[in-house]
Amino acid sequence: MVDLDKIISLCKRRGFLFQVSDQYGGLQGTYDYGPLGVELKNNVKRAWWRRMVYERDDMEGLDCAILMNRLVLKYSGHEETFSDPMVDCKKCKKRFRSDQVDLEEKCAEGGKHELTEPRPFNLMFKTIVGPVQDENNIAYLRPETAQGIFINFKNVLDSTNRKLPFGIAQIGKAYRNEITPKNFIFRVREFEQMEIEFFVKPGTDEECHRRWVEDRYNWYISLGIRPENLRKYEQKPEELAHYAKATVDLLYRFFPDRADENKQFDEVEGIANRTDFDLICHSKGGKLVLKDGRVIPNEHAVNRLTYFDHETNQHIFPYVIEPSGGVDRITLAFMMDAYHEEEVKGETRVILKLSPELAPIKVAVLPLKKNHDGIVTTAKAIKNTLQKNCGWRSVYDDTAGIGKLYRRQDEIGTHFCLTVDFQSLEDKAVTVRERDTMEQVRVGIADLPSYLRERLGNIG
Amino acid sequence: MVDLDKIISLCKRRGFLFQVSDQYGGLQGTYDYGPLGVELKNNVKRAWWRRMVYERDDMEGLDCAILMNRLVLKYSGHEETFSDPMVDCKKCKKRFRSDQVDLEEKCAEGGKHELTEPRPFNLMFKTIVGPVQDENNIAYLRPETAQGIFINFKNVLDSTNRKLPFGIAQIGKAYRNEITPKNFIFRVREFEQMEIEFFVKPGTDEECHRRWVEDRYNWYISLGIRPENLRKYEQKPEELAHYAKATVDLLYRFFPDRADENKQFDEVEGIANRTDFDLICHSKGGKLVLKDGRVIPNEHAVNRLTYFDHETNQHIFPYVIEPSGGVDRITLAFMMDAYHEEEVKGETRVILKLSPELAPIKVAVLPLKKNHDGIVTTAKAIKNTLQKNCGWRSVYDDTAGIGKLYRRQDEIGTHFCLTVDFQSLEDKAVTVRERDTMEQVRVGIADLPSYLRERLGNIG
Repeated sequence: MVDLDKIISLCKRRGFLFQVSDQYGGLQGTYDYGPLGVELKNNVKRAWWRRMVYERDDMEGLDCAILMNRLVLKYSGHEETFSDPMVDCKKCKKRFRSDQVDLEEKCAEGGKHELTEPRPFNLMFKTIVGPVQDENNIAYLRPETAQGIFINFKNVLDSTNRKLPFGIAQIGKAYRNEITPKNFIFRVREFEQMEIEFFVKPGTDEECHRRWVEDRYNWYISLGIRPENLRKYEQKPEELAHYAKATVDLLYRFFPDRADENKQFDEVEGIANRTDFDLICHSKGGKLVLKDGRVIPNEHAVNRLTYFDHETNQHIFPYVIEPSGGVDRITLAFMMDAYHEEEVKGETRVILKLSPELAPIKVAVLPLKKNHDGIVTTAKAIKNTLQKNCGWRSVYDDTAGIGKLYRRQDEIGTHFCLTVDFQSLEDKAVTVRERDTMEQVRVGIADLPSYLRERLGNIG
Repeated sequence: MVDLDKIISLCKRRGFLFQVSDQYGGLQGTYDYGPLGVELKNNVKRAWWRRMVYERDDMEGLDCAILMNRLVLKYSGHEETFSDPMVDCKKCKKRFRSDQVDLEEKCAEGGKHELTEPRPFNLMFKTIVGPVQDENNIAYLRPETAQGIFINFKNVLDSTNRKLPFGIAQIGKAYRNEITPKNFIFRVREFEQMEIEFFVKPGTDEECHRRWVEDRYNWYISLGIRPENLRKYEQKPEELAHYAKATVDLLYRFFPDRADENKQFDEVEGIANRTDFDLICHSKGGKLVLKDGRVIPNEHAVNRLTYFDHETNQHIFPYVIEPSGGVDRITLAFMMDAYHEEEVKGETRVILKLSPELAPIKVAVLPLKKNHDGIVTTAKAIKNTLQKNCGWRSVYDDTAGIGKLYRRQDEIGTHFCLTVDFQSLEDKAVTVRERDTMEQVRVGIADLPSYLRERLGNIG
């Protein structure tokens, strides 16, 4: 299996990802998505939205602002407890997460690091909103998309007439000021989440949690992840967040080059049973219970975030099942799983075997000769028809010879290359080459939509 | 024509938009998009990306991080000059934009405000990246998406083999700490932009600028904006930004209730000829020329952002044409333009006449009776088929009687309502009601995909 270094190299070379502000020396823990990266990432998000929102009957979408009123993050507990333990080297002043420091690392001042006691470092990015620079106007960049869903629970309920069980889905950016971002886009400071908060009646939560673990696992498999690279991991009681009744993590084999197989896997998504913790802590008259047992009564919320149960004629706090994944990590997992190398005529062929739904480009139309009017006009017309009438991302490319263009399209995952040659002008047909098998067949131009639709599937 | 108040009321009632953090008293100048709002906004973004990226042969996409290295915004000039003039009332301490203060407004302390001299207030949101809280680690939330495109010019060029002319398109959030946000989502602090930087050879820039003005104007018209509500406005020499050679604004009639017709129109998009200003100011050895004539040499950039012109064998700085629109404003314009009221049997019918591409929901499937197994099963099966096989956003709704459901779908812009009744179980057909005409026809269930495709068009 491919290791991270090869993926990083491909990403830079072909414009999937660039380091942020590399023109000015970069900004640690942030990445820009290039022309192919933005397509792949958007396809991942659309595939999630399509299956999780459109193809279900129990889901609403939401898109909250990244800036929030500070009180949201006070009563969620983030202001008090969303921190990592940090240590400093007294000699070289370097700063580490205390659980990640390498005690064997040589200090720049010589010898080993001489570390301070750990102290908490809040991971939220802080800013000031409005023209007056004082404490009252502090706001945070949200550390997760979840909180925006909780505080909008009643808004969504009131505007949609939903009955339990139902969920609210959101895709959007979130921010964590990681002390040591690392492993490419695996741990970054600016990232994107795809989160669902699924609201159910207490008592039905365990069964619903189990179903969501299966639904989310199957989503990855249906989009091409190989089962041997994806694991379910049920958190042990001592590992659970204090508000969670149960959590199952989905682990992907991000680090195949590690010797210990268990260490090859790391979290790509978590599915938690958060009980009624969040709706209570954000409710008028509710309270936040911290890990250490302290209780913070909510003195600011406007509404009680309850649901009126017509069967029992009671206002209840629903339980919440939360499938929460990181878009960047998930995109990375799909790339790693799709990456293949094979020997063809003594050369290494790199293929990104992405599913049709995820591939940045579905069809490349290539002219055999770039200065021939008839060939070029025909090729461009085919590209435009497939793009406009069929909606498949298609490109026209004449920047190299056919062999080189095939290789270029293979390594970015393009499913079909269509070559327009001299004969095309006579027989109104093109050579269709399939990515994985490299098989070539002659297909009439008029038959291309149905021929390709049969093979690409309904990928909207 | 509809005024802003009616749109705001519809947005709240039907869940297009909610005030951010209203559970905690809100956060001025920010909005959350609700279940219908997120669909409408995403459709606007997709319609833009489809026409501007996919259906052209001269465009690449990009998606840059919101956090940037501070030097980007130093050499773009934002750190020095991206500010509004601000005044304080010496008595009540209220703060205003000096060009927007109402001199007749009564001060809370009595009488009129007593204002200070104006002083510049930088509109960028500031934060600290990394665990060390000092000046060296300041970063800003980007005030526009454009700068990310400029500093990635060479990355995109190198990874795509593009030749001039070509453009780079980006959709993403940007932030401006407006002193007085107002007019709903027209002027907000967290907003989204759709920007293109189109790179051309100097000398071809004027013609290209004219073409882009037409292309962008036509985009709005093709998606349903009425020509009488959209104007082109060529900025006068004294209005131009100092780096711009020419700018044409597209103005939409956002404020139809204002007496002076010229004041009814305000900016929805700007198309600027920025010359080679940006690529030079971000280049190694380049320089930033400020409005007041001061010159700041670039002492940090790594590369020269030039293009090698094979015809003249010279490295040149391309000129840049920039069509730049605000997603929130554009979404608002589409809603306002689509809003209609008509009298039907003594009642007011509200219709959102959105184009099929933009409507949040294309098809609603309604059971005539909600507790009848056969009807419900048939209705849900139709919804699932249209959603999964045809890709049209479809919903099933049984939360009210048919008449009420029709009205609800009308005011959110749903094109077709399909009613499943007792007869449907016999004749395998449903009643199809069209939104604008309210015409009803009987269509066989098996014929629905082709019947609807003919009327919805290819909306991917």
